[in-house]
This record gives sequence, structure tokens and C-alpha cells, in this order.
Amino acid sequence: MSEFTPLNPEYAGVVAASFAKQGLMQALGIELAEIGPGHCVLVAGHNPDLLQQHGYFHGALIGAMLDSAGGYAAYSLMPADSEVLTTEYKVNFLAAAEGERLIARGKVVKPGRTLTVTTAEAFCMQDGVERLCAVMLQSLICVAAEP
Amino acid sequence: MSEFTPLNPEYAGVVAASFAKQGLMQALGIELAEIGPGHCVLVAGHNPDLLQQHGYFHGALIGAMLDSAGGYAAYSLMPADSEVLTTEYKVNFLAAAEGERLIARGKVVKPGRTLTVTTAEAFCMQDGVERLCAVMLQSLICVAAEP
Amino acid sequence: MSEFTPLNPEYAGVVAASFAKQGLMQALGIELAEIGPGHCVLVAGHNPDLLQQHGYFHGALIGAMLDSAGGYAAYSLMPADSEVLTTEYKVNFLAAAEGERLIARGKVVKPGRTLTVTTAEAFCMQDGVERLCAVMLQSLICVAAEP
Amino acid sequence: MSEFTPLNPEYAGVVAASFAKQGLMQALGIELAEIGPGHCVLVAGHNPDLLQQHGYFHGALIGAMLDSAGGYAAYSLMPADSEVLTTEYKVNFLAAAEGERLIARGKVVKPGRTLTVTTAEAFCMQDGVERLCAVMLQSLICVAAEP
Repeated sequence: MSEFTPLNPEYAGVVAASFAKQGLMQALGIELAEIGPGHCVLVAGHNPDLLQQHGYFHGALIGAMLDSAGGYAAYSLMPADSEVLTTEYKVNFLAAAEGERLIARGKVVKPGRTLTVTTAEAFCMQDGVERLCAVMLQSLICVAAEP
Repeated sequence: MSEFTPLNPEYAGVVAASFAKQGLMQALGIELAEIGPGHCVLVAGHNPDLLQQHGYFHGALIGAMLDSAGGYAAYSLMPADSEVLTTEYKVNFLAAAEGERLIARGKVVKPGRTLTVTTAEAFCMQDGVERLCAVMLQSLICVAAEP
Repeated sequence: MSEFTPLNPEYAGVVAASFAKQGLMQALGIELAEIGPGHCVLVAGHNPDLLQQHGYFHGALIGAMLDSAGGYAAYSLMPADSEVLTTEYKVNFLAAAEGERLIARGKVVKPGRTLTVTTAEAFCMQDGVERLCAVMLQSLICVAAEP
Repeated sequence: MSEFTPLNPEYAGVVAASFAKQGLMQALGIELAEIGPGHCVLVAGHNPDLLQQHGYFHGALIGAMLDSAGGYAAYSLMPADSEVLTTEYKVNFLAAAEGERLIARGKVVKPGRTLTVTTAEAFCMQDGVERLCAVMLQSLICVAAEP
């Protein structure tokens, strides 16, 4: 299905283990919903702790989920014994993020030995309808894992 | 001290009230340390919930704090009965954010009736020394407050 | 074909007239190859003036074409008697831009009364094969035309 | 004066030689006005070929000059026998670029063995007064020079 072939056949377990170690993702109640070669989906449910002053999903949550969705999409294509670090990202907010769930879908645009570029989109689901609320463009670097 | 003159003399109270209503900022334990005309400082202490998988401050926290620091810097120059929304931002991560505290300093580069542009810098403090760990460039829009 | 309905039925002529007035686009030999509701394609041929120090298409040319392709995609959906201005863009360079032609395709992600967000992709064509060499994410503002 | 120490004592000559080889910079009449360790200034004079449809300096020219000013600022700190490539940049346009001259000042925020982050500012000079018209945040990669 994917246009990419993972270098590490165990990539899904590696991504899940990394995700589980992130205190902030757990604290925010974000779930790793899907991981495949070069793509990743994260989901957050409605929770007062995740909102901004008008009751919408907070931009910081949207940024965090887009960053992580793009990051794990990139990580899925990296070799074993590597780590991924975000070097930069840019996000545009398109609409108020109102709804029951927030969904972030990341995908790799261009994998690289050193740098990988991804995009990610955030959708809010309201009454069963998904609406695009933010887009991101991101760079990540592959580094050797610390033993 | 500041090169900017606030349109709303009550700006500091308006910013503090807006900040206090943000569930996510409270959940993350982020404090509004300083607000002035066109600038804002936010601080986070060390907390396992704010870390990523290597024990450093999470990039999502850094992004959130930079976004909010720039956003409130912009908001401080907006007229009464207005709201501020981030339309986009870009962040570059420069170094691992290791330390006891994370400090985000936002300042206005160009205020505008519709759009305001800001920059923000994140510093981690370790053993009393501040180190620059991320920089941001951001756009915000001023909209009429909902009654 | 397009998901967008133009507000100005004369949008194609308006875009062509605006493009023709841009001294820099003419100086660089860039052509407006296609304009439709919410999308635009620009093309540049090989020309020593457009190259950087290694003989590839210059990043500045790529940035300029992406910016203009996104800008005219946005402009195509704006009302009559309006002007478009880029407020910001971000571009990631993915590969050396080697080839006979450079093609920039812009499309609207989210049109808006004030702000429009677009993406654009640059492809270099070499021996008849197109290769993605850069991606852009951009914001534009609609302003009333000066009489 | 500079906080940075160049790795290559011949950096100024290396930058000047690279700049001279860029067909596009020459075609646009852009001059390398200053190069120091971690900073660079480029200047363009008024020229109908550099304008957009309203007679202001074209955004593409501003983007190109900011990109190059940041790029050569980064290159000044790189070792001999290396090349610099822009991996990405983001530019915010702050004001119409009206005037006799356009000046781009780039400086290094964080040098790195692989990645360097810079900022750059563009000023237009009108009647002897400089006005900030754009800001940029950029990443560059250091690669071994092709023999």
C-alpha cells in the first residue's frame, strides 16, 4: 500500500515503544492509532485539559500532535538503532478545532539518510464529520541511538 | 522601556485573565512570569509529565510555550474587546532542552491592525546557566471578541 | 474539476494581467502555464541566469516560483477589485534541481475572506521525468485594490 | 567583534568566490556588501527588473536575498572544502518594500557541524531611512565539497 519500504522490519514496535516513553503524550491522553511505513496517525479525545480559552482544542495540542505524527512517520523509515529528532516545523492553523476528537495524520514527503521531510494534517471530528483544521511542514534528523 | 505603546491600558489584566482560562497551560504547569507592551515571558518547571523519551523537555512543550509567549506578546498591543489567534508559526530546535526550567520569551517584531508578527526564544536553565534551545517566528490575527 | 468556485468569473484574465506586470517574472523568463480555480502552474526553462554555483536551478528561483504559483492560486479565488499579498511562506528543499525545466504547481488548501493558505510543489524535469525538488506552505492576504 | 571564530581563515575569499559564480545573483544585480564570521550583508539597487506589479521590490527578490544572506553567514563558519545548502527557510513579509535600495542582513543563530540555523532581516532604504520589511528563519546543511 505504501510507497516506502522500511529499513527496520521491527519499526512498528520501535515506534510504539518510543511513544510509550513520552510522558507528555501520556499526560495529554494522546493515542497512537496507526503506524505504517512513512505514515502515522495520532488521536486525542475531548478533555478539558486539552482546550484553550474558547473551549476548542488548544493550538499547542494541535502542534504537538502534528509534530509527533510527522516525527513517527519519519521514524518508521529509519534504520534500527537510530533516533529521530525534529529540527524544525511550521504549522498553519486553518479553522477553530471544535469537536469530539482531534486526529493528526503524518506522512513522509522525502526520506533521507540524514534529513527527512514530512507533512501532517490535523482534523477535528464533529458529529461524525472530519474537518481539516491545521497543516504542518517539518524536518527531522536521524541520529545514532545512545546505547 | 518598551518601544511599543499599548492601545488598551488594561492589557496586563486582559492577558492574565486569558491565560488563566487556558486548561492546557494550567495542566502543564506553565506560569505567566512577565507581561509588558509587546513582550511576554512564560516559565515551566521540571515535571516528569513535560518530558520526552530521553528526559529532556518535550518539543511539544517548547512549541506550546513559544506559541503562547509570542501570542500574548502580540495580544498586549491589541485593542480592548479583541481576541488573538495564531495563524501560523515556525520553530527551529537548536539544542536538547535539558535543565530545571524552561523559559520562553516572546516579543513583537511588527504589530498590525490585522496581522502581528512576533519572534520567541526558548531557553533551558541548567545549574543557573541559560542556554538557547529553540527559536520561533509567528503570525497572529486580531479578531473582535465574541460578546 | 476543481473543488472551488471562483468569486470573479474573470479571474483568469485578472491573473494573467497581474503576472504580465511583474518585471521580475519577465526578467527570469518564467511563464504562466496554467491557471484554474484555486490552482496555478508556472514553468521556467533552462537559462544560465537562473542557476546557482553548481549549475542547478537556483533556490531563489524555486522560492520565487513557488511563492508566485501559490499566490496566483489564491488570487484566482479572490473577488474582483482585490489584490493578493504574500504574508509569509516556508519552503523545504528536497533535492538538487537539475534538469531542463522547472515546474511550480500551487494550490489552495483553505480559502478565506482575509487569509488564504496554499501549498506548492516544485518539480524539475530531466530527460522527460519529473522529480519533486521542493515543497512550500504559504499564507496570503486579500486587500482592496488601490484605485 | 563577532562571537564566532571561523574554522576556515580564508572564509571571506571562499564566500566571495561562491557568490561570484551564482548566475542569478549577478543577473539580479545583487552585491555582496559585507562578510564576517557568522554574518553577511547583501544589497540591491533600484532596477525595474526587480519590481512587482505595484513598483515595490518583488517578494521573490527579498526571499532570494534573505536566503543568500543567511546562507553566506552560515558558510562563513564552515570548514574548508565544504559546501552549504539551504534545507529550508521561512520568511514573513512585514511592509511594502518601497525605496531606492534593499538590504539583507543574515546572521548565524546556532552553528553546527551538520545543521546551522540563521535569521536574516530585509530593510528597504527610502530617503535615507531604513525600514524593516521582512524577516527570515532558515536551516542550512554543511556537505563535503565535490572535488
